[in-house]
Amino acid sequence: MRLLRVGPSGGERPAVIGPDGRVLDLSSLTADIDGAFLADDGVARVQAAVAAGTLLEAGPYERVGAPVARPGKIVCIGLNYSDHAEETGAESPAEPVVFLKASNTLVGPDDTVLVPRRSVKTDYEVELAVIIGRTARYLDSPAEAAGVIAGYAIANDVSEREFQNERGGQWDKGKSCETFNPLGPWLVTPDEVGDPQALGLRLWVNGEPRQNGDTKNQIFDVQHVIWYLSQFMVLEPGDIVNTGTPAGVALGRGPEAYLRSGDVVEIEIDGLGRQRQKVAQA
Amino acid sequence: MRLLRVGPSGGERPAVIGPDGRVLDLSSLTADIDGAFLADDGVARVQAAVAAGTLLEAGPYERVGAPVARPGKIVCIGLNYSDHAEETGAESPAEPVVFLKASNTLVGPDDTVLVPRRSVKTDYEVELAVIIGRTARYLDSPAEAAGVIAGYAIANDVSEREFQNERGGQWDKGKSCETFNPLGPWLVTPDEVGDPQALGLRLWVNGEPRQNGDTKNQIFDVQHVIWYLSQFMVLEPGDIVNTGTPAGVALGRGPEAYLRSGDVVEIEIDGLGRQRQKVAQA
Repeated sequence: MRLLRVGPSGGERPAVIGPDGRVLDLSSLTADIDGAFLADDGVARVQAAVAAGTLLEAGPYERVGAPVARPGKIVCIGLNYSDHAEETGAESPAEPVVFLKASNTLVGPDDTVLVPRRSVKTDYEVELAVIIGRTARYLDSPAEAAGVIAGYAIANDVSEREFQNERGGQWDKGKSCETFNPLGPWLVTPDEVGDPQALGLRLWVNGEPRQNGDTKNQIFDVQHVIWYLSQFMVLEPGDIVNTGTPAGVALGRGPEAYLRSGDVVEIEIDGLGRQRQKVAQA
Repeated sequence: MRLLRVGPSGGERPAVIGPDGRVLDLSSLTADIDGAFLADDGVARVQAAVAAGTLLEAGPYERVGAPVARPGKIVCIGLNYSDHAEETGAESPAEPVVFLKASNTLVGPDDTVLVPRRSVKTDYEVELAVIIGRTARYLDSPAEAAGVIAGYAIANDVSEREFQNERGGQWDKGKSCETFNPLGPWLVTPDEVGDPQALGLRLWVNGEPRQNGDTKNQIFDVQHVIWYLSQFMVLEPGDIVNTGTPAGVALGRGPEAYLRSGDVVEIEIDGLGRQRQKVAQA
């Protein structure tokens, strides 16, 4: 199943893609797609309503928002593809590298991405995002992680490399700028995604292919990542985990590859849809 | 004015300390003390209600919660006192070191602090916390920061040093464990705090003095920190900024100084009250 939120920023309505591809309104079922909805078996209720054929069409909308409301936190895994670690000059990590991204960076999949003021190294990162559906605290094993995952989505983990790497060494400074986390278009449930370790990820800038990876090359797979994080923090319903990016980012390509106002970024992951962001100046 | 939240975790009621020291209930004025309340001139409305003498006493309560509801983000400044930078073996930073803490680490000032499983280096950090009252985005100058500050509180920026420093280098991993951000007891408004750069900070473990600093020794003062952060992220009403800790943490004292189940941590900052946390095992 593919859940989404449509409408203006801050006024999104919950929706689901029906079996025939129509966008169906979920307002009769829930006020929003958020942690409380996911924790309360909301996905099962949507499935039942879709099967019963009782949902009305959403009608026209001007925008797709992020498929979940603003999360409690966005957790990110660094250097989780060996080819990306190599291009940044870092060794492949012995265990997941973990950092956070301010949760007000979340925007819709086709919203404008802003180059921060005084930025010269704004970069893109296609990532498989995991949306948490149940509380995860000290999970006993990676296998247990399957039970806490509500679904998957595309994320662009936008990053300012000077802020991230040359301004004190803690990455969050270059990861938390406004509009730095496009998410969506959909939250796709695990049954529809299939094997999360067999998804191609692709990213273009102005039509030029920049990233072309596969989640099979993740150093730490999705279940390992979620289990691992649960040893250090409590993951809650609605939280988002960005699981790392493959090679091809601007940091590895040289100064001319960084994003500038007017650029267009397009992103897709197998089964998770497609994003398209215009870049503008903050 | 001193605002607080009293009652069980998750069921706190908003309150204020009246002119005669009684705790007055604010439920008639607002459902909670949160970002929306602060942004909507909530403090001014409380002042008017206190002056009018219309508020009722809060009655008995078993617990004091954090003085603001769970924030959108908790931002922290690292190494912001030269004596602390020195004890950790780091140089004094040329500009603020910034990291994030998961916002579900927030607990009340006297709640139990949990040593994470497999932790051997759980540490304490008394800090002056700033509570944001208005959106801060690209502030023009440090002086402008005064206009976005709702108040101040004590924070204990609890930290697991092995997770923070020896497990990949990004600090968030050792900063985001559950219960790792006691806050309170009060949100004290700026008019009552006076000069935020003239506050003594003290911390004891089992009655033994461990930290004894003064905010006058901050490398980057409060206004500079808020202005600086606003160049990299959008600060929102209800967000919390922990402005760094002075010397005396366990990391600088040796292995026997780390927190263990059964320990008691007491903390005070001039004018901001006092915290007392029992330490237990997760």
